Amino acid sequence: MNNDLEGLAKLIRYYSLVSTTEAGSGHPTSSLSAADLMAGLLFGGTFRSDLEDPRHPNNDRLIFSKGHASPLFYAIWAAAGKVTEKELLTLRKFNSPLEGHPTPAFRYTEAATGSLGQGLSIGLGMAMNAKYLDKLPYRTYVLLGDSEMAEGSVWEAMEIAAYYKLGNLVGILDVNRLGQRGETMYGHDLSIYKRKVAAFGWEPIVIDGHHLPQIVTAFEQASQMSDRPYMIIARTLKGKGVSFIEDKNGWHGKALKKDELARALRELGPVDRGLRGRIEPPQGAKPARVRSVMAASVTYTTEKPVATRHAYGTALTRLASQYPDMVVLDGEVSNSTYAEIFKKAYPERFFEMFIAEQNMVGTALGLSIRSKVPFVSTFAAFMTRAADQVRMSQYSNANVKFCGSHAGVSIGEDGSSQMGLEDLSLFRAILGSVVFYPSDAVSTEKLVEEMAKHQGICYLRTTRMDTPILYRSDEAFWIGGSKILRSSKKDKATVVAAGITLHEALKAYDALRKEGILIRVIDLYSVKPVDVATLRQAAEDTGFIITVEDHYAEGGIADAVRTALSKDPVPVHGLAVRAMPKSGKPEELLEYEGISAKTIVEAVKQRMS
Amino acid sequence: MNNDLEGLAKLIRYYSLVSTTEAGSGHPTSSLSAADLMAGLLFGGTFRSDLEDPRHPNNDRLIFSKGHASPLFYAIWAAAGKVTEKELLTLRKFNSPLEGHPTPAFRYTEAATGSLGQGLSIGLGMAMNAKYLDKLPYRTYVLLGDSEMAEGSVWEAMEIAAYYKLGNLVGILDVNRLGQRGETMYGHDLSIYKRKVAAFGWEPIVIDGHHLPQIVTAFEQASQMSDRPYMIIARTLKGKGVSFIEDKNGWHGKALKKDELARALRELGPVDRGLRGRIEPPQGAKPARVRSVMAASVTYTTEKPVATRHAYGTALTRLASQYPDMVVLDGEVSNSTYAEIFKKAYPERFFEMFIAEQNMVGTALGLSIRSKVPFVSTFAAFMTRAADQVRMSQYSNANVKFCGSHAGVSIGEDGSSQMGLEDLSLFRAILGSVVFYPSDAVSTEKLVEEMAKHQGICYLRTTRMDTPILYRSDEAFWIGGSKILRSSKKDKATVVAAGITLHEALKAYDALRKEGILIRVIDLYSVKPVDVATLRQAAEDTGFIITVEDHYAEGGIADAVRTALSKDPVPVHGLAVRAMPKSGKPEELLEYEGISAKTIVEAVKQRMS
Repeated sequence: MNNDLEGLAKLIRYYSLVSTTEAGSGHPTSSLSAADLMAGLLFGGTFRSDLEDPRHPNNDRLIFSKGHASPLFYAIWAAAGKVTEKELLTLRKFNSPLEGHPTPAFRYTEAATGSLGQGLSIGLGMAMNAKYLDKLPYRTYVLLGDSEMAEGSVWEAMEIAAYYKLGNLVGILDVNRLGQRGETMYGHDLSIYKRKVAAFGWEPIVIDGHHLPQIVTAFEQASQMSDRPYMIIARTLKGKGVSFIEDKNGWHGKALKKDELARALRELGPVDRGLRGRIEPPQGAKPARVRSVMAASVTYTTEKPVATRHAYGTALTRLASQYPDMVVLDGEVSNSTYAEIFKKAYPERFFEMFIAEQNMVGTALGLSIRSKVPFVSTFAAFMTRAADQVRMSQYSNANVKFCGSHAGVSIGEDGSSQMGLEDLSLFRAILGSVVFYPSDAVSTEKLVEEMAKHQGICYLRTTRMDTPILYRSDEAFWIGGSKILRSSKKDKATVVAAGITLHEALKAYDALRKEGILIRVIDLYSVKPVDVATLRQAAEDTGFIITVEDHYAEGGIADAVRTALSKDPVPVHGLAVRAMPKSGKPEELLEYEGISAKTIVEAVKQRMS
Repeated sequence: MNNDLEGLAKLIRYYSLVSTTEAGSGHPTSSLSAADLMAGLLFGGTFRSDLEDPRHPNNDRLIFSKGHASPLFYAIWAAAGKVTEKELLTLRKFNSPLEGHPTPAFRYTEAATGSLGQGLSIGLGMAMNAKYLDKLPYRTYVLLGDSEMAEGSVWEAMEIAAYYKLGNLVGILDVNRLGQRGETMYGHDLSIYKRKVAAFGWEPIVIDGHHLPQIVTAFEQASQMSDRPYMIIARTLKGKGVSFIEDKNGWHGKALKKDELARALRELGPVDRGLRGRIEPPQGAKPARVRSVMAASVTYTTEKPVATRHAYGTALTRLASQYPDMVVLDGEVSNSTYAEIFKKAYPERFFEMFIAEQNMVGTALGLSIRSKVPFVSTFAAFMTRAADQVRMSQYSNANVKFCGSHAGVSIGEDGSSQMGLEDLSLFRAILGSVVFYPSDAVSTEKLVEEMAKHQGICYLRTTRMDTPILYRSDEAFWIGGSKILRSSKKDKATVVAAGITLHEALKAYDALRKEGILIRVIDLYSVKPVDVATLRQAAEDTGFIITVEDHYAEGGIADAVRTALSKDPVPVHGLAVRAMPKSGKPEELLEYEGISAKTIVEAVKQRMS
């Protein structure tokens, strides 16, 4: 391997400048600061990748956590001969795979980035996969900006990478001193980064990020690490190589104008546009197979109530043998979410992620990109902690399964901070997501299996308390389905519920029936997509719908039902959590919030009066 | 001050045990580990508070970031004579102020906690207020659990507290080794915490958390700090004082049964239940007045389009003199959100919070509790990063104003990662929130003022690009209002829009009018609460509504409108972002997502055919 690193670095700079000027926007200066680092990484002899097969299981992985340096990202693959100059000039244009921030539309993108501070967690998932699951020698490299080191999510990834002894994970910190609107917290004081990185259990090395031999040596050293992640802390200059933008404030995210570009290129000097860097392919190793043992099937009997959160843990364990790529992550609450049932059966496929939800979700995304099927659990309330990571995962075609336990005020005494009351809203607003909210153990079992089968982002909402079994073990459940539990030709109203409130709806049915009033009761276990046909039929038959949900009034079941009926609407009376939640017994709180059987009965009667 | 610290610590343990057993749930073991620390803090002579006036501006502040130790929190105020034994026994009961996790229902609670890792940010806001705004000598103390140190948000607070040289902020880290489901990442290795804390610029001291003289000395030293925040890292035992639960796994969040309590109390020995600790009141200092200068009023002319994000910055600056408690925080994007306009005019009331959104929101909450009116800005997309902090702020009666810029696909070339497409959903699902989405500079000006006037959580969504001025400077806007921009007796449909899509709706109006088709156009600038009367009238008059929003289909304007019409519904056709967003020109993307004038025209015509 004798690549002309100087020439390639110059070519990469050239491409970064030309493509952004053509686009009229973008981040040339943030690209130039890391150009030498990336030239050294890709073409310095350490990096291994089969460029014909970007998804090769043993390729080294490269993630641009500082996603705004996308011009650099595309430029390095151009320098490797995989993007043409013509393609480079489509940067940021509609339908070009070369988007403003990297997305999977470009085939060498591992994961979409651009929300800062998330790349290291994704890389962690890939490194974890290499070390503990696929057992492959590939390494994962993450390019970080100095500004994004302010994000707590980075430090979550730092601590967890050290905890899991991920010597195959390499961070490259591009300390170019300047953020978007001025100097970063520490400027060019690299000793602070070194101290922090070391305190978090990583091996730090400080280098001149524009000195190619130092860069190449650092990557060689990084490849010797066995059980400590390695952070290359590089002193760089933003805009390096072009005097009038180099280390200057006010040039963040600005493309050069045509005349400025001409000046810049004159400074850069002659560029060999025919030069291409060679990258060695990886060993042809195959991923390790994971242990697979047949689990007994589970039968729930109607005699004994079971919490849906418990059924989640049981289901994971039962499905583990059929889905060998399934892995489980939990945020230090596995004895509450019942992910611990899986952990006990398959400890090698369970990862304790501690109380660091952001990193947990980023790690899950990384695992999912490496063909695993991660199930991620914590309290529904704490899913909000990772809302940005959930949001970003939709742009990486993630195949991640989320389970939020302890939904709603029905958790009782712990009070508002522990109550998931906005989780349906959070996950419904994710493009193409599936949102399930089962009411009993049987449907939970079946829906967890649907999640494992389905390719995409799924969310399962579980309940803290034991709830009665409603379904026979052979009942079928599917994405977009629902169940009509009570129905007659004389129904005066339809009650649509899911989870804990479905049991309230059934109680209301019994109470009303005693008074000769019949209602339809629908179990809307698939909150997204929603069973439009069944809801429309109910609207037509009964002319009035009551929704009941242990969730805030916005973004949940009522909104899903109203949307389903928007062509031929009927009145939809939404019962939901509207008063300030507090501690109390579950039944007191259902009453207080107006989502109990009593309120349903009142709403039906009011309609009839 | 000669409090009997040993006796008070024992009394606090007694109360923590008895109240949780009576409640039948709660966290006695997590309370016992920090009992000596809290006895030493409150009654050791350093802490200053006027117990008759918990909101006294110069009281020392105490925040239980480990909110699950609420039995301890209530016990210390009982030991101070401010909670009766009878009240203690209402712990976790419906309508008791002593909730499962502290909330403002209890008068000595500074802020609701219980979602771990958030307390230090809140304390930071209070300390920042003391040092830079009120200029008062009070100190802020935050009790932290060791498990929650895994949360990235804690390290955001650490770095920013050091950056702002908050020597008046004291962390108390209760290293009891055990988390919820087992040992923490570092167990009792306090040296790791010390290294990390020091690396983040704090002054660490390691003590035995059950040795009262060491504790008292540590707090005395802490009160000598001038410009470095101080972290007391205390080695403690979970369940300390009761042998069969002390330092034992499996006792997290479990109340003792009656017989276990009896055993525990025998071990504890005689308790002086008449003992009360004395706390000295603070100096009667008053908050400093902030500089207040009259700003010129702003007049927008119809000739020149202005971005609503720019109008936000201008409005803040104009209002600063009328609202002297207003402060502005931004997440390192003030030149994009235009918070920088305020920063330039009032640098002493602007705080750069760097790229650490979680801490920014927690800090804002702390400032708001100390009577400031914080305006917090970043890209709308990155508000999701702090979704859990936003969620928790609603339980602290927060008075925080959020501004998310760069909403929607109309930002263009930067691509999906930078597009706020779920922010309306996020903020609508906050109890009692106000959500504004102005379409021009004049309404932005007026709505920022409404936010400043209103007590509570408000969100303002702004647009990247320049948009035409629609309103005269004397037009009035209010919470729950809307504007009918086009209307006639012959309207065939109503188009409800806000922000960028309102301009598309107006274009659609013009195009349709040329063909002799009239529509009503409503500017729904107040997305929550929504103008039900105007929407109902439009539904009645036109029988058909089209909503158009640069936001995902769930949780935004369509849902708000359907909810408003749920009693007498008409068909609502929702145009929203439904295809995978990407880079491109704003107009290309509006077209691609089906939220442009063209799609509106088509939808109207389809309805009429």
